[in-house]
Amino acid sequence: MQQDDLTIEGRNAVLEALRADRTVDKLFILDSAGPGPLSTIKKEASKRGIAVKYVDKDKLDAMCSGGHHQGVVAKCAAYDYVDVSDILKKAADAGEDPFIILLDGINDPHNLGAIIRTANLAGAHGVIIPKNRAVGLSATVARTSAGALNYTPVAKVTNIARCIDELKSKGIWFACADMSGTDMYKQNLKGPIGLVIGSEGEGVSRLVKEKCDYVCSIPMKGDIDSLNASVAAGVLMYEVVRQRML
Amino acid sequence: MQQDDLTIEGRNAVLEALRADRTVDKLFILDSAGPGPLSTIKKEASKRGIAVKYVDKDKLDAMCSGGHHQGVVAKCAAYDYVDVSDILKKAADAGEDPFIILLDGINDPHNLGAIIRTANLAGAHGVIIPKNRAVGLSATVARTSAGALNYTPVAKVTNIARCIDELKSKGIWFACADMSGTDMYKQNLKGPIGLVIGSEGEGVSRLVKEKCDYVCSIPMKGDIDSLNASVAAGVLMYEVVRQRML
Repeated sequence: MQQDDLTIEGRNAVLEALRADRTVDKLFILDSAGPGPLSTIKKEASKRGIAVKYVDKDKLDAMCSGGHHQGVVAKCAAYDYVDVSDILKKAADAGEDPFIILLDGINDPHNLGAIIRTANLAGAHGVIIPKNRAVGLSATVARTSAGALNYTPVAKVTNIARCIDELKSKGIWFACADMSGTDMYKQNLKGPIGLVIGSEGEGVSRLVKEKCDYVCSIPMKGDIDSLNASVAAGVLMYEVVRQRML
Repeated sequence: MQQDDLTIEGRNAVLEALRADRTVDKLFILDSAGPGPLSTIKKEASKRGIAVKYVDKDKLDAMCSGGHHQGVVAKCAAYDYVDVSDILKKAADAGEDPFIILLDGINDPHNLGAIIRTANLAGAHGVIIPKNRAVGLSATVARTSAGALNYTPVAKVTNIARCIDELKSKGIWFACADMSGTDMYKQNLKGPIGLVIGSEGEGVSRLVKEKCDYVCSIPMKGDIDSLNASVAAGVLMYEVVRQRML
């Protein structure tokens, strides 16, 4: 299990971290902030015996990489990465077929955060990212996930293709998004499934695509090339949701 | 018709602007950039008799607000806003039922750009945004739209609720996304339709929601509150695409 040091910034993200009982080491609030929007955060912190430190804007700005602290920053121990087996256990505990999102090299932290956020709401049991050539769980990712990082486990693997092989042996089917594929509405995406989303520039790599049981395309009617990676991931995840509800 | 001054930055966005024959006043390229990725841009510019000016990195950085020029910046006359009637005409010319996206106060330029990008690929005929309390067609929006802004017309209206009334009288039905609504998979979203997406923080305003014929909810299975606005817009637009394909 690995750890990334983490600064959580922004009201929603800090509030969700508190409510999810994450270990908040220090909580910083802007000294000139009025009551109002930050009072819920103060209340939640006080309930948990977390002391608040009041600092000025320069100090807050210096603390966070993203620069979107909205007057509040929490320093947490870390976001733990889980093992892939923990994701499978989460599905088993819920009595559901596994629904896993694999990201083959997402580079933009906003996309990673938005994908984790969507994965949470679509009922996926976890997200798997590669160790190299990809963004990790930074403060920007935590903020953009709008708190989902507290609930949806993320595993980091050395090799996505090998990870797919291992999960296939446990009965999971894999579908990737690629323009060369078959219309996603015509594919059977029910049952235990891993959805593979490619990187922003390159899409899904050849080796990973070859491992997939299905190659799904999202219908494209327009003039440009491709959807934003987090939108494509959302559209595909919700096709799984729709088919599971049938 | 209004105009916004526009600096287009980044390789994809500049290339799409050239290919869409937009009026490029000036084209700036990084003097230290090798051949390779920028050669297509140079070729397209030369075909259209647009002179290239080579500048250093500081000059390029100073030109763009977003700071993501990737070695190329184009100064365009402007992105023209269209009239709502132009969007209807586009649908009529294509012999299709109108499919329009209305944004009730999107504030983040990345969300606006991603929504215009998705609207293009989902086959929507145009996007309508409000004059106030919302972001306009900035350089960041153009870049994030990945070129879609050259093809998908955007109209700006004073009052979204009044605009809905006018379009209703022309036979268009309206659906908005709101958690209080009925599962989108159970709604009939075929035929002439306007999809209304609310702002990031507040959602769809009460007055606008009351004007809508349908209130659609996206099924939410997770622990957090809501999807990112551009992901929610994408999921809803693609439900319209799916129903239109049936």
